Amino acid sequence: MSELKAYLREQQRTVDAALQQFLPRSSVRPSTVHRAMRHPVFAGGKRLRPILCLAAAEACGGTREDAIPPACAAELIHTYSLVHDDLPCMDNDDLRRGQPTTHVVFGENVAVLAGDGILTEAFAIIAQTPENKRYRTRDYVTELAFAADSRRLIGGQVMDLEGEGKDLTKAQLVRIHEAKTAALLTSSLRLGGMSANASPSRLQALTDFGRSLGLAFQVIDDILDVTQSTEKLGKTAGKDAEVSKATYPAILGLEKSKQEAHRLTRKALAALQAFGRRANRLDQIAHYLLDRDY
Amino acid sequence: MSELKAYLREQQRTVDAALQQFLPRSSVRPSTVHRAMRHPVFAGGKRLRPILCLAAAEACGGTREDAIPPACAAELIHTYSLVHDDLPCMDNDDLRRGQPTTHVVFGENVAVLAGDGILTEAFAIIAQTPENKRYRTRDYVTELAFAADSRRLIGGQVMDLEGEGKDLTKAQLVRIHEAKTAALLTSSLRLGGMSANASPSRLQALTDFGRSLGLAFQVIDDILDVTQSTEKLGKTAGKDAEVSKATYPAILGLEKSKQEAHRLTRKALAALQAFGRRANRLDQIAHYLLDRDY
Repeated sequence: MSELKAYLREQQRTVDAALQQFLPRSSVRPSTVHRAMRHPVFAGGKRLRPILCLAAAEACGGTREDAIPPACAAELIHTYSLVHDDLPCMDNDDLRRGQPTTHVVFGENVAVLAGDGILTEAFAIIAQTPENKRYRTRDYVTELAFAADSRRLIGGQVMDLEGEGKDLTKAQLVRIHEAKTAALLTSSLRLGGMSANASPSRLQALTDFGRSLGLAFQVIDDILDVTQSTEKLGKTAGKDAEVSKATYPAILGLEKSKQEAHRLTRKALAALQAFGRRANRLDQIAHYLLDRDY
Repeated sequence: MSELKAYLREQQRTVDAALQQFLPRSSVRPSTVHRAMRHPVFAGGKRLRPILCLAAAEACGGTREDAIPPACAAELIHTYSLVHDDLPCMDNDDLRRGQPTTHVVFGENVAVLAGDGILTEAFAIIAQTPENKRYRTRDYVTELAFAADSRRLIGGQVMDLEGEGKDLTKAQLVRIHEAKTAALLTSSLRLGGMSANASPSRLQALTDFGRSLGLAFQVIDDILDVTQSTEKLGKTAGKDAEVSKATYPAILGLEKSKQEAHRLTRKALAALQAFGRRANRLDQIAHYLLDRDY
């Protein structure tokens, strides 16, 4: 496991260095918005989406260099959604990644605009992904917009807001998690594969892996919200219950939720068969996410 | 002038029909966000940016069909920025294009997400612009992201917020207007030209036209905010003075502001020389904007 941790740290550093290059410096005018954009991006995220993107490229025989733009773009989509999700008019969260949230530091108005700026930057960056025989800039941009759009990422946020205080079925909860979490994880993997000129069947395998991994990830997130401390999570613990949000533990209970996380992880791993040893990293990351405690 | 008005109405209808096709229907789930996205888009905008895009394509010998995706994408960038700009934590405006603003109808949280959805859709649409000998998808996406980013459109909003209640110089005001207004008008024109395979010198002429026209447009907007009624404008009149916003009339006085609008319009028109008769529509639109009263 410590070899994997060294790998994850190394990939994190690579992604952080690339994001440093891609984002406008803090000194660029108007500097308020650039400081506000950099605050959530460099608040110490796990970089899960970019790491999955890079590992998918590796599984498809591609290079890390070609996968860096989509990796960073996926991370920025994730980050902007957190900035807007944490706003007072949304989840009203003061803490994220162990740091005060963007609106706490810069005010609500600048936080809205910083989120917009990060989202816009994601598309400027994805357009820099090198084209290859199978995939063109149009495919990359379309894939990222698909994951981030009003049926997937944004739609999931809306369903989440509308579900608060209601009794949801497991099927409804799965639909929210597919939209809010699994879609962007899946597209992160697919974009890595696309940057590596992956065949359609490989891309399908990454899609299957991503969907199950994304759902497993969210089940585990729900479990950790109940079982871990705010300090450990880097965000406010017990938040879901406080706002009567539908979660796996609330619907299935804690024990069945853990079983569900295991089942989904096994399903994800099965989709990796086709890749052989090249998918070792993806396999390890899936196990790592299942066993994480933050 | 009535021939021009018929042309503008016809172009508006074309853009509206295309936007109807591009945007998810209201019935698509979650329908709240899709209704909230459609509300500001179909609230009766003048469609200035898409019309400039189409007219620029015409001036460069291109087709309306090829210029429709960038035309709609530019309009969506403009619309999303209005939705976020009108939020209670920003300009706190209840009225836009003669309609209640998105957050008044759908709530602040849904308005934030609807703006995000419209912005994301703009990039999904720009990626559909046909490539030609000179311009690739990467060029289109990069151009749109440039105009919309944290140094231009979003940066202008931030400078605007930070300038409230302060005495700005004319140079500072020009910088705000270049970022907030002229950049997206210019890119709308450039994208139209790019979709028509415009030569670099033609693209430069469109850039020069756009910058001066954009500044003229904003001077006129500032003048109208002082001289026209809320009913006529479709948005709250006298708003600039109320929040002590720096404007041309506040800095130069009304008469000198009108002279400045004329000077900038003449400068814009001079940039059209190279196009000959093909730029007639752009010429007419510039005159029309100078004489508008809403």
